[in-house]
Amino acid sequence: MENNRLILDVLEGKDVERTPVWLMRQAGRYMSEYRKIREKVSFLELCKTPELACEVTLQPLKAFKLDAAILFSDILVPIEPMGVDLEFTPAPVIANPVRNPQDVQRLKPVDPEEELPFVLEAVRLIKDNIEVPLIGFAGAPFTLACYMVEGSGSKNFLEIKTLMHKNPDAFFELMEKVTESTYRYLQAQINNGCSIVQVFDTWAGILSPSDYKTFVYPFVEKLVNKLENAHIIYFAKDSTTFYKDIKKLNCAGLGVDWKIALNDAADLLDNKFVLQGNLDPAVLFADQKTIADEIDRIISEAKDIKGHIFNLGHGILPKTPVENVKFMVDYVKEKTADA
Amino acid sequence: MENNRLILDVLEGKDVERTPVWLMRQAGRYMSEYRKIREKVSFLELCKTPELACEVTLQPLKAFKLDAAILFSDILVPIEPMGVDLEFTPAPVIANPVRNPQDVQRLKPVDPEEELPFVLEAVRLIKDNIEVPLIGFAGAPFTLACYMVEGSGSKNFLEIKTLMHKNPDAFFELMEKVTESTYRYLQAQINNGCSIVQVFDTWAGILSPSDYKTFVYPFVEKLVNKLENAHIIYFAKDSTTFYKDIKKLNCAGLGVDWKIALNDAADLLDNKFVLQGNLDPAVLFADQKTIADEIDRIISEAKDIKGHIFNLGHGILPKTPVENVKFMVDYVKEKTADA
Repeated sequence: MENNRLILDVLEGKDVERTPVWLMRQAGRYMSEYRKIREKVSFLELCKTPELACEVTLQPLKAFKLDAAILFSDILVPIEPMGVDLEFTPAPVIANPVRNPQDVQRLKPVDPEEELPFVLEAVRLIKDNIEVPLIGFAGAPFTLACYMVEGSGSKNFLEIKTLMHKNPDAFFELMEKVTESTYRYLQAQINNGCSIVQVFDTWAGILSPSDYKTFVYPFVEKLVNKLENAHIIYFAKDSTTFYKDIKKLNCAGLGVDWKIALNDAADLLDNKFVLQGNLDPAVLFADQKTIADEIDRIISEAKDIKGHIFNLGHGILPKTPVENVKFMVDYVKEKTADA
Repeated sequence: MENNRLILDVLEGKDVERTPVWLMRQAGRYMSEYRKIREKVSFLELCKTPELACEVTLQPLKAFKLDAAILFSDILVPIEPMGVDLEFTPAPVIANPVRNPQDVQRLKPVDPEEELPFVLEAVRLIKDNIEVPLIGFAGAPFTLACYMVEGSGSKNFLEIKTLMHKNPDAFFELMEKVTESTYRYLQAQINNGCSIVQVFDTWAGILSPSDYKTFVYPFVEKLVNKLENAHIIYFAKDSTTFYKDIKKLNCAGLGVDWKIALNDAADLLDNKFVLQGNLDPAVLFADQKTIADEIDRIISEAKDIKGHIFNLGHGILPKTPVENVKFMVDYVKEKTADA
């Protein structure tokens, strides 16, 4: 059971004895235990095998005593059953990208119990093996739409922007379908044991504030309003100029990248959210004195905000020195317990 | 001679009859005239041959009657004589990246008259052939340092960030050398005929506001304060959370990407600068109705700012339809002359 409720307490606005800490992509390549498992199975196989997904989910908890677990999976897992051919090479590549109204038509919302049972089984397995809350997650509708339309990594996101501007009806229909899928997928994770869900809007930041408001925000709002029985954390990279809209979201937490000080973010957001972040993942490659200084700065910037969950400003990088991760987690715990 | 002084008048705070317009990368691959020349010479050869650099600089002026010319070159041209082996493959690759104090030691500031005479000759040639002001340009010190240290394209900029955090003395020495080179290079462009210079800080946006303030801003400030006899436009992508520092810069203009509305940018900057921007280059792939709507929005957002130079929010993309570029330029001129 959840003996450590720190992160839930923060999200519920309660006073806590210290700042909780977890890391985006905390299960991953920087850990030798993880690399050992990946020698035997592909990335997608790992996502689809509940016992292994559970095992890698637990690895960082054992190593660093983090305050939350996060389901090991990938944001693209639910787009496959929508009708998209997905491969990791190792970067994701989609053989049949969505480019026109006919492509959108052919997509169908997922049925998580039928089509993604391995994810829900992984959630139950992990839940049976941890004493901290379990975070579920999904890509935000726009970010998933970007992958589906671009079909691979993109520098300028011309395909999705052109669909959006030249064929808004098809774009909106795509967003409706992805939003419904994402809702079902996250609600199923919650129903199987996740008490927090994080919605990753990795690519929202490619847009102008006016396009974000018209084409993206309404779907995030709809998703957040439909989900029940969990705390929601929305994380959009490079999104501070969208805060006028984002501050209207009905969710408990907001992830913040390292591009803004937490107190400045809180000001723009009328201090409405618990903020999660925001150490630059590259700082973990520096010496421990620098890491400590940066953590001190972040803790001090978070002093007067509604609530703080310590995290990186983006996913941990594959070659991060493990000893620095341990140092960071211990230092955050020690430093915020003093206060 | 400069029969069309619109852009200079705006930068000098004078009232103008309409908004001036030019485009970042206005000479480039989207034009068939440019591609024809590139069939015969490599990119670096083109940069190093004054007659050809002049010819491609003039191409977009003839095609679209823009209000400024910008020297055809590349921000990496001046790093070669500093002691860096540069190739375009077509992306820039540096065979001997700067990684430690010894590498920094070996670099020397450029002597533009001796080492980059072809650039200054191109400036003089262009100047003799245009009736609009000529914009010179250079990479900002941090952006050039990023290329020199990373050695090639980078996703996470780990090398430069690690140098900065682990070896700040070497980092600062590198920045001093690059700042001095950039100063000499831009001042030589001015002395040979450029009446405006733009400083491109393409990579500043990878940093936290606190790192920008410590490691980047002081060098931009130094560069801007040293330059004489030209209007300076500073352009840093993804930099709105640095505006607290940037607004102290002693320059006339600031380039703005499409990630913030111009009126919101002006508010954060105490309306101190003429702003240049900020159409998303991807919008030029849409239909002309969408392009007109986006231009209308930008013109209306720019209504009360100190001064406006219409431009894209970043360089024009290689496959942009030429007819849409023509439509955009004509529409901006017509629309702002009405007002």
